Parts: sequence; C-alpha cells; structure tokens
Amino acid sequence: MSRAHTAADRYGDPAAVLGVHSEVLSLQLAHRSVRRFGPREVTDDELTALIAAAQSAPTSSNLQPWSVVAVRDPDRKARLAALAAGQAFIAQAPLFLVWVADLGRASRLAERANTRAGAVDYLETTVIGFVDTALAAQNAVLAAQSLGLGSVFVGAIRNRPEEVAAELRLPPHTVAAFGLAVGTPDPAEQAGVKPRLPQGAVLHREQYDVAADAHIAAYDERLSAYNGRFGLSGNWSDRVLERLRGPESMAGRHRLREVLERLGLHSR
Amino acid sequence: MSRAHTAADRYGDPAAVLGVHSEVLSLQLAHRSVRRFGPREVTDDELTALIAAAQSAPTSSNLQPWSVVAVRDPDRKARLAALAAGQAFIAQAPLFLVWVADLGRASRLAERANTRAGAVDYLETTVIGFVDTALAAQNAVLAAQSLGLGSVFVGAIRNRPEEVAAELRLPPHTVAAFGLAVGTPDPAEQAGVKPRLPQGAVLHREQYDVAADAHIAAYDERLSAYNGRFGLSGNWSDRVLERLRGPESMAGRHRLREVLERLGLHSR
Repeated sequence: MSRAHTAADRYGDPAAVLGVHSEVLSLQLAHRSVRRFGPREVTDDELTALIAAAQSAPTSSNLQPWSVVAVRDPDRKARLAALAAGQAFIAQAPLFLVWVADLGRASRLAERANTRAGAVDYLETTVIGFVDTALAAQNAVLAAQSLGLGSVFVGAIRNRPEEVAAELRLPPHTVAAFGLAVGTPDPAEQAGVKPRLPQGAVLHREQYDVAADAHIAAYDERLSAYNGRFGLSGNWSDRVLERLRGPESMAGRHRLREVLERLGLHSR
Repeated sequence: MSRAHTAADRYGDPAAVLGVHSEVLSLQLAHRSVRRFGPREVTDDELTALIAAAQSAPTSSNLQPWSVVAVRDPDRKARLAALAAGQAFIAQAPLFLVWVADLGRASRLAERANTRAGAVDYLETTVIGFVDTALAAQNAVLAAQSLGLGSVFVGAIRNRPEEVAAELRLPPHTVAAFGLAVGTPDPAEQAGVKPRLPQGAVLHREQYDVAADAHIAAYDERLSAYNGRFGLSGNWSDRVLERLRGPESMAGRHRLREVLERLGLHSR
C-alpha cells in the first residue's frame, strides 16, 4: 500500500491507523479532487460503467429520483462553466456530468395516469431528490477513481439554476443538483489528499457531545500546515466562517428556495 | 466474477454488459440492502474504518457539515426503531448509525468567534448539509460491504425528527438526515440485487430528453417479475405513484419544513 493510501494522510496525523483493510478503503482514503485533466476522452464504456455504479446506490423506496446529463460538447461545457463561477476546469474536462434531482419523471408518470403525485410539492421530497442524487453520484466518483479517472464536484452549478435548466432543457420538477467534471488526472497537477477533521470531532457514541468541538484546534493547525504546502494560508475555522458569513458569501445561492419554486420543486 | 456481480442483474436485463471492470464496480453492482443481521458485533476497528471512509468523500468547500451518532445500546436502538416506523431490523442490527446534517458545528464556531454564520439560515446550506452527509454515508456503505458487512438506509428516521433529536441530544442547527443499520448479513435473508431503471431512462446526452420515459414500460415488467420472485406484486410505476400520492402517504414527513425550522435549520 503506497503512503498516499493511509489514514495518516487522510487525517494529517501520523497516529491515525486503521485496524481493518480493503481495496475499497484504500481507494477511498486516497481520494482527492482532480481539477486538471489530460487530453484522453472518457469512453462510452467508461461512462456506462459510472452510471451503472450510480444506479447501484441505495434509493429511498426505489424512487430513483435523479437523472444525469452527460455533456461533451465543448461549447456547451464552456457555457456551463460560465454559469458556474467561470471555473475553467469544467470546459477543460473531457466529460461534464450534471446530476439532476428529478421529481419530473414521477410527475410525468402521474400526469399520464391522470392522477396527482402530491408529495412532489413537499420539502421532504426535494430532500429525497438531493440525497438520492448524492448517493448515486458518490458511487460514480469512486467507480471513476477505480478506473483511473479523476473528478471534482461542482456545487457552483447551483449559482444560476434557471439558466442551467434552460441550457440542458430540464423539464419541470427537476433541478441541477451539482456537476461532476471527469477525466484523466493530469500528473502535473499539484494536489494532495486533504486532511479532514479528527474522527473524534464527527463521530459520537450513543448521543451527540458538543465537547467534540475541542478537536477543532488540532485540525486548524494541521490544515494550516497542509495549506502552507500549496502556498495557501488560513485555518479551517477561518475558512468556514468566511464561507458561511451570510447571503453575500453564497454566490447567489441564497435564492435557492425561490428558484426551486419556479422550477416546480415547491419544497413546502 | 460471480453472476451476482454483473450489470445483467443490476438491470434485470441479460443484454446489459459493461465494457470496463474493477473490483469497486463489481462490489457496487452486487450491492443490496441487508435487513437481517447475524449476531456478530461490528467492532470498533470496523466502525473507525467506516467513518474514515465517510470522511474521505468530497465535501463542499471542505465544510464537512455532518456528524454521525453510533448507537449500540439495545434500549436506545429500540426507542429509535419505535420512532422510525417500528422497523424491527433497527433494533436487531448490532450497530445503528444516525447520520446528522450538522450546521451546528459551524454555528458554534461563529458563536465562539463572536460573529455570525448567516448562511446557515438558507435552504442552500441545508441542502449542502444533506448532500454532503449523503456523499459521506455512501462511502461508508461501500466500505462496509468491502469488509463483509451489510447495511440498509433508514429514511424513516425523518418521521419524527424532534423526538430523534431529543433521544440523541442533537444540538441546534442539526437534524438526523437518515439512519444506517449495519451488521453481518444473515445468509438466511432472502433478498436479491434489485433491478434499476434501464440506463437509457436516467442518462441523457447533452440535453434532457423526456422521451427517455419510454424505457419505463420495460422496467415495469422487469420489476414485476423480480417482485414476483419474492411473492410481492406491483410494478414500478404503481409503487411510485402510491408512495408519492400526497401528504397522507408521507408518514408525517410532509411537516419536514416546519420541523427543520424548529431545529434551527431555517431553510429560507
């Protein structure tokens, strides 16, 4: 097992070791976001496999409330990049997957059956849509990694959801949940396995214990050290507070609720 | 590769084959929900590995907006089972993980820094909480499977979120997103790999095409045949319409929006 596949890297803590092992675990521990891609196309066979992986994830009541739009057209990728905070790697990636929380399929079923799918109007069902889309997409992320591909999620696809819906001709009761840029990792990209919070900060036994926050101080130091390696400054706490400061730090996404309503996801 | 690890089973379609392969893909294609567990405990080493896997999933802006409560106490499991539609397998599983969408950690950071995390009040941030919790949990699901453990998600933990919050002493700005029962699969459980929608129904090229709904008819037949093997009736369309009929088919979850507000997830 290469050094990059260890819990020590995942936690930025030489003392972190796992007592059990599997190939899946090694791959997961070694996961990193890839934002620079080589020129090789993602083949149709690879795409089929990623979607089969995604469809293999659990889904609430077998609703399967998601779809995915595979974008390869350079002009469309460039337009989507412009809608998603101008992130150049979207256009640079050979494949851009837009994962869609899709309550439209069920709504159309209901229409054809001359009945109503009233539950579609509730926030609970919107949440199921987002959650099941995420479960599916994470399977695709790991499947991609297992095939030697790299990827990175793009939450900024929610910056301007209506324009994205128009670009992809999304029908009513659907919304682009997030994007995923996929391709062959460019070995020249300087990026590591980003350390996460100590496990003690997120894992509680029997009941939630706010005293777990005491682990954050050590993490702030570890993440500062990690960021320093890439010429970046700032610890975790500062970055979280900056990112969550208020509506002005949300790149337009503070309007999600009203936008969802206009897209037919009433979320009441 | 055993027959159970094929795309043909995943789609209930002998014609479905993948052109690329990996161990991860095989495991994903073979995934099934496990609702009957053997007596063996899930060890602490296994639990640590599942959470390390979960923490290795991507997370928006490295916010890591989730926590997990590991419940092993039989009385607490029984109480949680009662709150989650009385599903007996929750109490029967040696380990019940409650995955928590957690904006509380960031809110407490802000409090300690004498500042505000105003973005916490918006639906966008609630969505990030649920999505990142799901990405993490799906990594844990696959890690468990790779270690010979089985699991099943429990969305019914959202039936009575306030009682669950009280049982687990969840702090403000957090909510139990879903449960995950984990244990050794009981080989006596009769359950198969559930076929999913044909890939053509969910995968779109360049733009969404509602004509993809034409694939549903074949799937309805396949799922009827699959359900028939377990003495169950009903095709997919009927089950989806029944499940989404309206608030009365939502086991109390149509109130999620107002409950989130009371839990400090204002979702505006």
